[in-house]
Amino acid sequence: MLNRERIARLQERMRQQGIAAFLILTHDDYIYLFGEDRFQPRAIVPAQGPPIVVCFRGEAEEIAEALGVTDVRVFATVGQQIKDVVEVMRSLFASLGQRPGQGRIPIGVRLGFSTPAFLLDLFQKANATVEVVDIAPAMDELRAIKDEGELAILRRAAAVAAAGMEAVTRTLRPGVTESQVAGEAEYAMRRAGGHGTATPVYVNSGARSRWLHGTASDKVVAKGDLVVVDLVPRVLGYCANLCRTFVAGEPTAAQKRLISAYLEAQAAAAGALRPGASMKDVDAAAKAALDRNGYSELFVPGISHGIGLEFEEWPMPTIHMRHQSAVLREGMVMTAGHSVLADPAVGGARFEDTFVVGRDGARPLTDFPARLSW
Amino acid sequence: MLNRERIARLQERMRQQGIAAFLILTHDDYIYLFGEDRFQPRAIVPAQGPPIVVCFRGEAEEIAEALGVTDVRVFATVGQQIKDVVEVMRSLFASLGQRPGQGRIPIGVRLGFSTPAFLLDLFQKANATVEVVDIAPAMDELRAIKDEGELAILRRAAAVAAAGMEAVTRTLRPGVTESQVAGEAEYAMRRAGGHGTATPVYVNSGARSRWLHGTASDKVVAKGDLVVVDLVPRVLGYCANLCRTFVAGEPTAAQKRLISAYLEAQAAAAGALRPGASMKDVDAAAKAALDRNGYSELFVPGISHGIGLEFEEWPMPTIHMRHQSAVLREGMVMTAGHSVLADPAVGGARFEDTFVVGRDGARPLTDFPARLSW
Repeated sequence: MLNRERIARLQERMRQQGIAAFLILTHDDYIYLFGEDRFQPRAIVPAQGPPIVVCFRGEAEEIAEALGVTDVRVFATVGQQIKDVVEVMRSLFASLGQRPGQGRIPIGVRLGFSTPAFLLDLFQKANATVEVVDIAPAMDELRAIKDEGELAILRRAAAVAAAGMEAVTRTLRPGVTESQVAGEAEYAMRRAGGHGTATPVYVNSGARSRWLHGTASDKVVAKGDLVVVDLVPRVLGYCANLCRTFVAGEPTAAQKRLISAYLEAQAAAAGALRPGASMKDVDAAAKAALDRNGYSELFVPGISHGIGLEFEEWPMPTIHMRHQSAVLREGMVMTAGHSVLADPAVGGARFEDTFVVGRDGARPLTDFPARLSW
Repeated sequence: MLNRERIARLQERMRQQGIAAFLILTHDDYIYLFGEDRFQPRAIVPAQGPPIVVCFRGEAEEIAEALGVTDVRVFATVGQQIKDVVEVMRSLFASLGQRPGQGRIPIGVRLGFSTPAFLLDLFQKANATVEVVDIAPAMDELRAIKDEGELAILRRAAAVAAAGMEAVTRTLRPGVTESQVAGEAEYAMRRAGGHGTATPVYVNSGARSRWLHGTASDKVVAKGDLVVVDLVPRVLGYCANLCRTFVAGEPTAAQKRLISAYLEAQAAAAGALRPGASMKDVDAAAKAALDRNGYSELFVPGISHGIGLEFEEWPMPTIHMRHQSAVLREGMVMTAGHSVLADPAVGGARFEDTFVVGRDGARPLTDFPARLSW
């Protein structure tokens, strides 16, 4: 169902920021405002008045029902869908009119990882009177504070992640491939009620444990390998992030030292997730813990980020340095443990959990022990 | 391993087209040229000279080994990776120099669905002397003709897809959810050697069968539902596409008529996949079959598209109308059955298979019967 309250709050912010319309091209914002999802979410929210959804003809009847409203106009024709979408948008923006002396019309767009560059390029070429501006300043603070309904879904996603990690501990042993382990985690998460994953399950073993991010390959897990497993299941679009590091066998002293240092840094970061703290404070807490353990040179800034309808959303200082100054508020959902600690001589370690920021500190949503072996 | 022959052929085309360098931001082109994959593939191929890979410090040693060369420069620092990447690129392009009187330096970029708009935006802002041009004209025809090694991997992916569809037939019945069916398909594909999927498995039942593309929701499959299942597993980056439509129960006469019409259109499209034929010819063959069965108004152009390291790659007339004039050549790998046939009164049907274009016509890579019930 269309969320009229969220749309009204967004439109107020858009008017304050002088954004004429918000062109939606990504799932996260579409789900947040429309309460349902499409394979190719395409919609326009003007600064005033009802939103417009652009969809395939075959979906028109069903989308109107799903949105629960009659004032949503549904555009669709058979044929070249993308051309249709671009042309619908062109005619809509033409109707906004060129404002004399004010230059081009500012249209908000989500400039994220999942925004297709080619669509944006087509859109800009077809709309010479339009200036694409980042929708983030209008949208991100709205989305950051999760309401009770959202928290309930996030708790379900966190439980799904734990079910996936449980399957990992049942499967992981020297001789299996990374991809086999990933497959068991995926399956367990679906059976626990997950709707797929936001990023491919990653299982990185041995030298691959040092990767900044991961995959799951046909590499066979060897005895003694460090194995970093990162799970980001979705439930109804919402993501929970749970990452653990295991040792395939008896941990060496160096592996134990690396992992203890990580756990200490993660705990420090989680402890810093409080209303009024900045992302810089959270990084500083984690770095201080690594400093104490002699790993300061290996610290990768961005130990924490927001999470919700995207696996990484505002604030996300690993991607945008200016987000270091973002200040936490009650109700934000954040991870702690994002950065890998990659020691060239030993391997990589990471433990990540998902938290909700409460008045007196962060409460974990994910719940899974930090077991090294199994 | 770095594929020197492919890089040399690309560089020749880049020089012919006046492209100074190719900035790689997507998996497909990275795998094609470098023979391995990263979570965030970032590399630059200049029109002349060795390519440059930009990666995280923790991966530096291992990436040099994976590429099997010493003349690949690996950049990486701790810290703000994206800023690092953008700055490395800025210094590289600055070294190319401004050519007097020739304007900005043309840099090729893949402008696809999976190219992150935000990275391209950052890159353009940081590189005022650069003009982003589409790499497609230089890259796509190279990638379109698959060599024997690629065909062997595509055959593996096709077998993985068939294993997934087999699991669907074991699971699908009135009372299960779409997501449960998707989970069984995913699991079977992993167990058959797949490395995840290129698009989320989609299982669309009832009214949702009319969607242009799909998802897999908690909707319970009802008796009599049309159920469209689309699988696009990957093996080593390469995709095979297999789509089938089932009826959850005894098919009605109208459902049978819809499905027969689709199968006839799909066969006509597959029959048209011959060297020298254009994509327009393939669409015309499918449309003629629908015309004969009274469905001409429901035809969605773009019955076929290329497939390989992307689930939809050149030529892809559903996305770019100009690809309608692309001409097929021996060795191209194409699907037939891409468009949904969505009858408002009955529901949707789709059957899609993956083919290699041979001298005398298309040979199927995917192999799974068109069973309506099970």
